[in-house]
Amino acid sequence: MSVSLTILAPGLLGGSVAKAARTRGTASRIVVWARRAESRLKLRDEPWCDAVPDTAEEAVRGAQLVVIAAPVDRIVPITQQIASHLAPGAIVTDVGSVKGEIARLGHATLGERAHFVGSHPMAGSEKTGWEHGSSDLFLHRTCFVTPLPGSHEPAVEAVVRFWRDLGGEPVTVSPDQHDEIVAHISHLPQVLASALCAFLAKKDPAWRNYAGGGLRDTTRIAASDPQLWRTIIEQNRDEILRALRQYQDELQTLHAAISNRDWPEVTARLERGKAYRDQFRPLA
Amino acid sequence: MSVSLTILAPGLLGGSVAKAARTRGTASRIVVWARRAESRLKLRDEPWCDAVPDTAEEAVRGAQLVVIAAPVDRIVPITQQIASHLAPGAIVTDVGSVKGEIARLGHATLGERAHFVGSHPMAGSEKTGWEHGSSDLFLHRTCFVTPLPGSHEPAVEAVVRFWRDLGGEPVTVSPDQHDEIVAHISHLPQVLASALCAFLAKKDPAWRNYAGGGLRDTTRIAASDPQLWRTIIEQNRDEILRALRQYQDELQTLHAAISNRDWPEVTARLERGKAYRDQFRPLA
Repeated sequence: MSVSLTILAPGLLGGSVAKAARTRGTASRIVVWARRAESRLKLRDEPWCDAVPDTAEEAVRGAQLVVIAAPVDRIVPITQQIASHLAPGAIVTDVGSVKGEIARLGHATLGERAHFVGSHPMAGSEKTGWEHGSSDLFLHRTCFVTPLPGSHEPAVEAVVRFWRDLGGEPVTVSPDQHDEIVAHISHLPQVLASALCAFLAKKDPAWRNYAGGGLRDTTRIAASDPQLWRTIIEQNRDEILRALRQYQDELQTLHAAISNRDWPEVTARLERGKAYRDQFRPLA
Repeated sequence: MSVSLTILAPGLLGGSVAKAARTRGTASRIVVWARRAESRLKLRDEPWCDAVPDTAEEAVRGAQLVVIAAPVDRIVPITQQIASHLAPGAIVTDVGSVKGEIARLGHATLGERAHFVGSHPMAGSEKTGWEHGSSDLFLHRTCFVTPLPGSHEPAVEAVVRFWRDLGGEPVTVSPDQHDEIVAHISHLPQVLASALCAFLAKKDPAWRNYAGGGLRDTTRIAASDPQLWRTIIEQNRDEILRALRQYQDELQTLHAAISNRDWPEVTARLERGKAYRDQFRPLA
């Protein structure tokens, strides 16, 4: 499949979509739009940008597939902004980390003339900006596609195919299922890592110089953009609170077992954790 | 400095000590002893083993520096076993992750004839066994050296020099300071990662296939050896409980802020975490 592709508000993920599409030849034409004029100026020098118009409305004109790569709180506003400028039958997707509201409002905004199908590739970095994007970012990574019951089936299939063509592994789930899953496997780890660093920040600052690989790895994502994560937590608040509460219960049970010197119980929980981790699929 | 070196009960760390000492020429002779006969048979084929005697007592004969690389609950028993076989003035150290009890009992066991000075290199892996050891494991890594007030000063200096010669960055602290520090920067992250995996193990097992880099990194150490960690938690129980309780308070404050939609407070904590993580020194 080779589509006329438009990417709006590229950050790390949007830049990677463009680079991957160019490298793999999955787009016949790549149009990119960024909000800031100086970003557009820089983008015009990039080999993965065929055109960089001054407005989002202009950028989506004639596009078959539009990827909105903005932070989660900007996706619906941008969808509303471009809605009346889309070609009939155009497909709009996004890369936001929360899907419930975005999928519903995106679908409602476009109606039947064009098709909104939400996406969320499980790829990224604690770094931000399209400069850090990579054409290999989606390789073997789960890419969620989150249709609603009323979604246009060929549009859903096109979005699934798009992520597969970029090297990803598409998984189709409902927006609400998606939000429950990522609350556990992405948002909870982020909250825990940030809390760990916020806690250690109260202690002797020299300690961080002693960190081995364990602390380094468990806290890498704490370096992520706080504003980006604040909006993700805001949009997925209920699911995150539920997962966090259950994790706190798990931690309290472990605290009690250590406190009670119940070493068989402590060992059993460490073993359960190891068994789970050992079964992660390799990202070959 | 080139010493006659003996390594007892090599695992990942002991194997790495031997490989690093051989590569860097910091040992004139490397004698290794392992408890299991089949391990000794295999070790005899390794280029970093000059001799592999059948007993620990024989292995320490004439050694200037003995490194006990056994799990924390085996270090004091092995020290007792070898005590009367050490050369006068011999230095004994270890690589255990907890130091209070080991440093005190080790020192008491050897008395004045030989010198026990505890060590703990902040290096390792979720993997175990000397086969996975590496001569670069200690490069730029903090190596704690934990003398007591009564420790023999030249012996302390020799242990500091030993780790520096292997590429590490020695840091001298008291055994109790050490245990407080690692409860926070090593044992707490381990407990959190294991608890996260033990918690997720109760959910849909398919979810783990969707994991991005965030969950992978935050949980890597959950794959560590549960028996090894059980003994570490047992020996550093009080410090770990204190650090864990304070972390639980941090998490509860963050839970409350999310629950109350206090987004400035949530953002402030994410920012504090990022500021802390951004200042980790690079492991160049």
